[in-house]
Amino acid sequence: MKVFKIPEATIIRLSVYSRFLEQADKKGIVTISSGEIAEGVGVSPAQVRKDLAYFGEFGTRGVGYNVKDLLHHTLKILGLSREWPVVVVGAGNLGTALVSYRGFRERGFKIVGIFDNDPNKIGKTIGDMVVQSMEELPETIAKKNAAIGVIAVPATIAQDVADLLVKAGIKAIMNFAPKALMVPDAVEIRNIDLAVTLEILTFNLCMRENGLL
Amino acid sequence: MKVFKIPEATIIRLSVYSRFLEQADKKGIVTISSGEIAEGVGVSPAQVRKDLAYFGEFGTRGVGYNVKDLLHHTLKILGLSREWPVVVVGAGNLGTALVSYRGFRERGFKIVGIFDNDPNKIGKTIGDMVVQSMEELPETIAKKNAAIGVIAVPATIAQDVADLLVKAGIKAIMNFAPKALMVPDAVEIRNIDLAVTLEILTFNLCMRENGLL
Repeated sequence: MKVFKIPEATIIRLSVYSRFLEQADKKGIVTISSGEIAEGVGVSPAQVRKDLAYFGEFGTRGVGYNVKDLLHHTLKILGLSREWPVVVVGAGNLGTALVSYRGFRERGFKIVGIFDNDPNKIGKTIGDMVVQSMEELPETIAKKNAAIGVIAVPATIAQDVADLLVKAGIKAIMNFAPKALMVPDAVEIRNIDLAVTLEILTFNLCMRENGLL
Repeated sequence: MKVFKIPEATIIRLSVYSRFLEQADKKGIVTISSGEIAEGVGVSPAQVRKDLAYFGEFGTRGVGYNVKDLLHHTLKILGLSREWPVVVVGAGNLGTALVSYRGFRERGFKIVGIFDNDPNKIGKTIGDMVVQSMEELPETIAKKNAAIGVIAVPATIAQDVADLLVKAGIKAIMNFAPKALMVPDAVEIRNIDLAVTLEILTFNLCMRENGLL
């Protein structure tokens, strides 16, 4: 199979399409056009077709896409046709918020452990989870078959936590600490910077102020 | 002036470039090429040039960009040459985490108020802020000249909160509630869905498993 480099923006849109298709499916809609998907999510129909074309031929010309089929395919492409066990390191406010974050569960991400090194936090209950000590991290990752780790600790110890996660067999990391972390090439990592979204907002506010939007 | 539609992906990269330029400036680097920026942030040099070209001519052919100048310009384009007062609604774990999120302050976003309707939370101290009641929201927004509001409440009351923010004069909203909110055209809104980033990770994990990455 020929492998194309797929832009990350395409993956993000695929994630958005699949949410839209999920809603359409719930409403009982059977077929849908690229134009309807485009309008529903706010991109151009050509963009929808181009994004989907990376992954094969899904629709029928003049008929559109079968909603259930396309939903199934997009979820499969995103790796969401199975459940993903996730561990969270850091039981501060952010880690606590993440454990009860509904958006994860809805997409098949199941938090199977939350860890901290603070004796005051270890043993505390968050939802239906109990905060575990860092010593228990490797065993839980192995036992629960977790491939994804979330780092929600201060920047000063984020690299140590990343090292521990990698050593314990984690293959993908979502990092909230404001620090660039080093991981082996075999491990996927993405940093979350919440300020970026505020900057999209301020960019647009300034464009409006200058009459450019 | 001719106005081009600027892709949101360009704005996001501009935000990334400006962080990289900030680091370069701190290291005392005076001039930098599009190739060096590209390598530093992981995109192609052509992409860097194309993104910057939306906003004018910044570099000198064969010399590159002056780091301080380009940093100044990118921050100005993003609307970051001033401080932005921000209000947060919802003093749960997420709202509490956001109030102490260093990444906001570093980019010029200053939390000037956190609000909740829960009597058990009102009056509580978070960092150097005291949780205020929802009744105080309009006055604080007016007094502090806040243009940006962050919604960190359950989905069931998110639309009510959005309506209150809009009525109080907020021009841009960052919404963490898993719900599509209706706001007037004059108000900018972006939803944060943290699962999207996990889906980029699972997509890549699956590509690796299938030997495609």
